[in-house]
Amino acid sequence: MAKSVSIKPLADRVIVQPAAAEEKTKGGIIIPDTAQEKPQKGTVVAAGPGKKDEPVTVKVGDTVLYGKYSGTEISLEGEDYLIMRESDILAII
Amino acid sequence: MAKSVSIKPLADRVIVQPAAAEEKTKGGIIIPDTAQEKPQKGTVVAAGPGKKDEPVTVKVGDTVLYGKYSGTEISLEGEDYLIMRESDILAII
Amino acid sequence: MAKSVSIKPLADRVIVQPAAAEEKTKGGIIIPDTAQEKPQKGTVVAAGPGKKDEPVTVKVGDTVLYGKYSGTEISLEGEDYLIMRESDILAII
Amino acid sequence: MAKSVSIKPLADRVIVQPAAAEEKTKGGIIIPDTAQEKPQKGTVVAAGPGKKDEPVTVKVGDTVLYGKYSGTEISLEGEDYLIMRESDILAII
Amino acid sequence: MAKSVSIKPLADRVIVQPAAAEEKTKGGIIIPDTAQEKPQKGTVVAAGPGKKDEPVTVKVGDTVLYGKYSGTEISLEGEDYLIMRESDILAII
Amino acid sequence: MAKSVSIKPLADRVIVQPAAAEEKTKGGIIIPDTAQEKPQKGTVVAAGPGKKDEPVTVKVGDTVLYGKYSGTEISLEGEDYLIMRESDILAII
Amino acid sequence: MAKSVSIKPLADRVIVQPAAAEEKTKGGIIIPDTAQEKPQKGTVVAAGPGKKDEPVTVKVGDTVLYGKYSGTEISLEGEDYLIMRESDILAII
Repeated sequence: MAKSVSIKPLADRVIVQPAAAEEKTKGGIIIPDTAQEKPQKGTVVAAGPGKKDEPVTVKVGDTVLYGKYSGTEISLEGEDYLIMRESDILAII
Repeated sequence: MAKSVSIKPLADRVIVQPAAAEEKTKGGIIIPDTAQEKPQKGTVVAAGPGKKDEPVTVKVGDTVLYGKYSGTEISLEGEDYLIMRESDILAII
Repeated sequence: MAKSVSIKPLADRVIVQPAAAEEKTKGGIIIPDTAQEKPQKGTVVAAGPGKKDEPVTVKVGDTVLYGKYSGTEISLEGEDYLIMRESDILAII
Repeated sequence: MAKSVSIKPLADRVIVQPAAAEEKTKGGIIIPDTAQEKPQKGTVVAAGPGKKDEPVTVKVGDTVLYGKYSGTEISLEGEDYLIMRESDILAII
Repeated sequence: MAKSVSIKPLADRVIVQPAAAEEKTKGGIIIPDTAQEKPQKGTVVAAGPGKKDEPVTVKVGDTVLYGKYSGTEISLEGEDYLIMRESDILAII
Repeated sequence: MAKSVSIKPLADRVIVQPAAAEEKTKGGIIIPDTAQEKPQKGTVVAAGPGKKDEPVTVKVGDTVLYGKYSGTEISLEGEDYLIMRESDILAII
Repeated sequence: MAKSVSIKPLADRVIVQPAAAEEKTKGGIIIPDTAQEKPQKGTVVAAGPGKKDEPVTVKVGDTVLYGKYSGTEISLEGEDYLIMRESDILAII
């Protein structure tokens, strides 16, 4: 399970722990195998305070879909995370 | 028939279930066969809350026209959907 | 004559029925034969509500001039229409 | 002399009747023969209402200078006009 | 000496009469001979009213420095002028 | 340890002293070795006042993550620093 | 020592007298020799009034760092200066 992390993203950035590469999720979502800009799934482990007058919508623990090439990879306490802007997140499952 | 789905799009994103590839719809709309940026038809199955001061206009159940290359494909409970911004939607039929 | 259609364009989009290709209109307007970006003439058959604080100016029935490559072609009840943003419309004749 | 025309430009668009190609105007203005972006002279025959909070400054009858490649050519009642945005107009003579 | 001209620039446009090509000015300014984007000197002969909420700062008679490739050349009563936006003017000497 | 410096960045600029190239930090963060846009770690030694209505969020002493190619290198009292905009900073650890 | 000059920069422009090419300054700052976008040091000799609601922050006499390719060179009373926007200035030393 994804645990929250002590890192604090700035502004509207969000840290997401990508879900393990599975083909069918508990909710039945299948990430298509086609080439460009596949959405992927992960869990929010940290969220910034948002931009001025625009608080961040996602919360720690939310399972989210995001574009395949969104974000920057970081490694934290031995696990891989993605740090991205909230606008790179497509939906909360 | 398109059913509503449990996924929650963020901001002004909308999830559309594309109509089956038919040549003439009940309303008489024929999607032209010419090459670039053909509008296509589908049904809204989920809509985000909209952006600040700009609530989303389309509602779940609306049949909409959108540009051919709009949105990102996702697969949900075995069916294909498109997640796109509301501004990619041209009209409600 | 252009009839109004039941489709509802979103935001500042307008649906225009292009005029038949004629060389001299009743009003005497001749569309020049030179190459790039020729204005063309048509009749508004549906207009969106406009953007926030900017209602659409054209009305159903207006004869309008627009740039040649404006809009996206759609076919509705057997007739061809163009769906475009109001900013693609140059003038009302 | 330029007569006003019945066409109504939208927003900040202006219809200009280009002056005949003369080398020295009554006011003594000579349009230079150098290559790129020569200003040209014409008479405003119709002006739109302007954009929100920005009424159009030029009036019908004004003689104006504009960049050579500004605007879109239209033909109206047998005469050639240019339809351009007011921001393409450099000055009123 | 530069005289004021009867032409009225629109918005934030300014008409400048370029100084004669001299190598050292009365104020001691030497325009460098290096290649790209040399500032040049001239006298304001007409200034527009400015944009909304942004009146033009330079006045007729001001000697100004501007980038070499700024503005559009016009010829007026036998003399060459440049018409440019006020933002192309670097400084008042 | 990073000491604060006497230089005053303008607007939303921040001066960061990059951390020594280590493979595993005290907090367990490992900067991945993959190619493009690796986040890196450093300590804020000076921060500007921020832009109008947007004070800077990071404080002197904060350990921050930033993109690999962010900022401009400067050398100050014999040590290398990076001067970057606050928006180049991804998170505070 | 840099003296103030009589030229008045417009808007948010600033005139900077570049420091002599030295390798180590009194404050210990060494400008690195690496290739792209090196910050450089100079003294402000004139500053514009700033843009609307954004007065200029630097004052005449401030020693500033700026990017190597910032600004336009001008020569004034026999000395070389750079005229640049305030946003090209990185920090005040």
